[in-house]
This record gives sequence, C-alpha cells and structure tokens, in this order.
Amino acid sequence: MIKSEVFIRVLYAHTDNMGIVNNARYLEYFEAGRNTLLRELGFPYTEIEKLHYGLPVIEAHAKYISTAKYDDIVKVAAILKKLPGVRIMIDYELFVNDKLIVTGYTEHSFINLDTMKPIRPPKDFMEIVKPYFSAK
Amino acid sequence: MIKSEVFIRVLYAHTDNMGIVNNARYLEYFEAGRNTLLRELGFPYTEIEKLHYGLPVIEAHAKYISTAKYDDIVKVAAILKKLPGVRIMIDYELFVNDKLIVTGYTEHSFINLDTMKPIRPPKDFMEIVKPYFSAK
Amino acid sequence: MIKSEVFIRVLYAHTDNMGIVNNARYLEYFEAGRNTLLRELGFPYTEIEKLHYGLPVIEAHAKYISTAKYDDIVKVAAILKKLPGVRIMIDYELFVNDKLIVTGYTEHSFINLDTMKPIRPPKDFMEIVKPYFSAK
Amino acid sequence: MIKSEVFIRVLYAHTDNMGIVNNARYLEYFEAGRNTLLRELGFPYTEIEKLHYGLPVIEAHAKYISTAKYDDIVKVAAILKKLPGVRIMIDYELFVNDKLIVTGYTEHSFINLDTMKPIRPPKDFMEIVKPYFSAK
Repeated sequence: MIKSEVFIRVLYAHTDNMGIVNNARYLEYFEAGRNTLLRELGFPYTEIEKLHYGLPVIEAHAKYISTAKYDDIVKVAAILKKLPGVRIMIDYELFVNDKLIVTGYTEHSFINLDTMKPIRPPKDFMEIVKPYFSAK
Repeated sequence: MIKSEVFIRVLYAHTDNMGIVNNARYLEYFEAGRNTLLRELGFPYTEIEKLHYGLPVIEAHAKYISTAKYDDIVKVAAILKKLPGVRIMIDYELFVNDKLIVTGYTEHSFINLDTMKPIRPPKDFMEIVKPYFSAK
Repeated sequence: MIKSEVFIRVLYAHTDNMGIVNNARYLEYFEAGRNTLLRELGFPYTEIEKLHYGLPVIEAHAKYISTAKYDDIVKVAAILKKLPGVRIMIDYELFVNDKLIVTGYTEHSFINLDTMKPIRPPKDFMEIVKPYFSAK
Repeated sequence: MIKSEVFIRVLYAHTDNMGIVNNARYLEYFEAGRNTLLRELGFPYTEIEKLHYGLPVIEAHAKYISTAKYDDIVKVAAILKKLPGVRIMIDYELFVNDKLIVTGYTEHSFINLDTMKPIRPPKDFMEIVKPYFSAK
C-alpha cells in the first residue's frame, strides 16, 4: 500500500448555493490527491507524460458522507492499494478535522499518447511500485 | 421510467491539457441533466427548495467510455428508472453524435432544509412521479 | 458592429456560498458568448484552429452590477464593436429578465499556433468581418 | 501596503485544450490570494461573515502576460495598496519560477449581509488595517 496526503483550503469558488463544497469539485480534490501520490512515489505525472504515456480516468466514484464548508481545510488521502497493471486504481479518503467526509476512487488506464491505445505501465514505474506490494 | 434530454456545447473551459472534457466537469453535465429532468416533470428543483426540501448528492459515479472534445455538442440524457423514496437515483447517458461517451448515476437523499435530516419526498412530488411507475 | 446572444441556465455548480453565481464563472459565460459570436459570423473557433491560429485571452474585465441566482436564465450578448487587427476585443452584456447584471470585455491576440507568436488575422476571417465595419 | 503570498500547484482540471491554465481559473487563484491576505492580516473572511458583513466582487480585471502549465507552482501575491473604505481594492501578481505571468485586481464592496446594502467596514477591521497606511 502507498499513501499520500495533501491539504486543500476550501474557497468560495468551491462551494455552492447549499453552503457546502459542490459535489463535482471533489473530483478535482481527488486529482490533487493522486498528483501528490505520484510525486511522493518519485514518479510525478509529468514524468509519465514525458515517456509518452497518459493515465486518463476511466471510472470515478464518490460517496458524500458529510460536508466541507468554506474555509475548511480538507485533508485528501490518496491510496494505492493494489499493484497496478494496464489499469491502476486509486482510493481517496477526505477529512475535515479528522472527520471522514468523502470517500471514493478513480480507475485509470495507461495509454500510449501516440496511439491513444491501452499499454502496460512504464517499466521504471513498475520497479518503483513493486516493492510496496511484495510478499512479506 | 422518466427521461429527459439537454444539450451542452463543450467550451475550452470544460477541456483540459489532454484535449478532452475534464473528468470532473461531467458531474456538472449530470447536474444539467437532472435540472432538466425535474423541470420537465413539472417539479423543478426550485420548487423543491421552496418547500424547504433539499436533494444533496450522496453518491456519484461516472464511467468514461469515450471522450468529448472542444465544440462538441453533448447530449445529456437523465433517467429516473425507479420510484423514489427518501432516496432518489438518477442515471445518465451522454452522447456525442449518437456515440455513447459517458454513463453514470447520482444518488440523492431528500432532506428537510431546516433540520438537514433525511425526510420522505414531498407528497406533491410523489403524486407527479407515481403514475410513471404504476403496474401495467 | 456584430452581436450574438446565447442563453445559459444557472446550475448549482455555478453558484457559491453567497447564493449567487461565483465571479470566476462569468468568464466561462463570456467564453460561451464569443463561441456563439464566431459561429454565427460563419467562422467558428474550430475553423481558426484548423488554420493553425489561436486566440488566447490577453486581458479580461468584468463589472458585477447585480447578481444571477440558481436556475436563472442568463442572456449573454457578445459584441464585436471594432474591426479586429492582430488584436480583437469582444464586449459582453449579461442580462437576467432584461436586467443588466454583468458587463465586461476580453481582449485576444491572434497567434500562430506553431510559433505561438502574434500574427495578423486569417484573410478569410477579415473578409467576413470587414463588411460589418464599412463606412456607410 | 499589505502583501501576502500563497502557492498553488496547477492541476489538469485547471488547464484547457491549449495546454495552459484557463483564463477563468485565474480568478479562483485571485480568491486564494485574498483569502490568505485577510487571514494573515488577522481578520479572515469567515470573521467578516460572522459580523454579518459580506465582500462581494464588484469588479475584476486580469492581464495575461504569460502562461502557467500543468504541474507548475504558481505564486499568488495579493496586495492591499490603499486604505479601504466602503470599497476595497486588492491587486494580484502571479509568478511561475519568478516570472510574472498574470496581473490583476478585484474591487469589493462591504455589504450588510442582512440588507445586502453597502456599508462602512467593521471598526475592528479598520483598526487592524490603518497602521499599515499611516503617514511615515
């Protein structure tokens, strides 16, 4: 398992008429989470792009348990629970003051940016990731 | 079953670096879909609010099958497949030129806007909705 | 002078905590306006791109006179008041129920998408635009 | 003069089809800037709201000099150059790697949140702000 955390201050622009963060905005918070996860892993998404790979979102899910409000600091935990293959699944757990407010996941597929076809992950990426999932 | 359609022109602001509509933006397209569904049903969301009810999103799911690009016209179909209770589930099917690009759903809970607690749907709403789900 | 109109239904996702459309979102409404202006002129932005031209925003201004609220229909008028050169200025007037709520403008520069350098507008574009600004 | 700085990592969701941060998104970066400015001043916007004051944007301006790209870290400097009255003007200077990419300002009006009418700033706010603008 690999886990990272990043913190986001809620702006007015993130909230809606109901006084809470708009449901669509959380998918951007998810992106901030996985951006941080890949960077801390030593393989930022910009590196993936430089190798002509892409990682488009093929599925996204969010469960809204509670709410974040203006000026709250949201902790976004991004978690890689399973060794990636052509597909990679990232889980998210969002907290305000240690209270879980949103959970979710995104699934991605490695693609070749030239052909836009699915492709196995870069070898260097797998070498970095594998040790986290080795048998104990 | 109740179904409505609304059309959205893709703006630059909806797209991202990959040249396609950003995954988070589709949740806004979903909202446009259900806004239209409720209006065509004769019970726009503003009416729900006037009765001090709210319908926050408690779960959202999107499956990205293909992509929409700048200036495409996206057809957003919103579909109510099951008689609502305290919870209401809306399905979405998005098309560009008759090609299915995204599917998904949102689940909502009726709440009392004063107490913010779950509550059964307004009677007037159920009276409008029920005939669509009557036994044949 | 060339003028076009497009109508936008205000979604929850456009509003913020203050119960009104968020100030940043109006720049997206402006984009919807100029997208329509160029299309109605017979030279949609996608045509400009096909000729390897771009029209990035180099300046944007908005004056918030009144507010749009959830479910309002905003009329976005986009107006080309002056014959474009390397630079093109577009004015915006936004209305809800015939009440002026926001005015603004964006200034753009034609660029060569290959060199990213400023360049005179495509000849075909100027031929379409010129008659609107001829001496009477 | 009062000045603050905050740093924003550019996400895919902030960029558009042209591979750069979308022009509308910078107004959100401006908001992050003034949120930080007020907090560092010891009078966060949430305090202003608790006193039943609001500070809606009445004018916004942005000049796009250069561009920020995916994964760039944008430094957002927010600057209060003039003693506020009913109106308050905040200037912004955005940098990527010490290169100035965007300048702009927003003008706000203090309003009474109950009447939505313009009103002089809270006394406590003025007491905090005044010393920064005293004659030398």
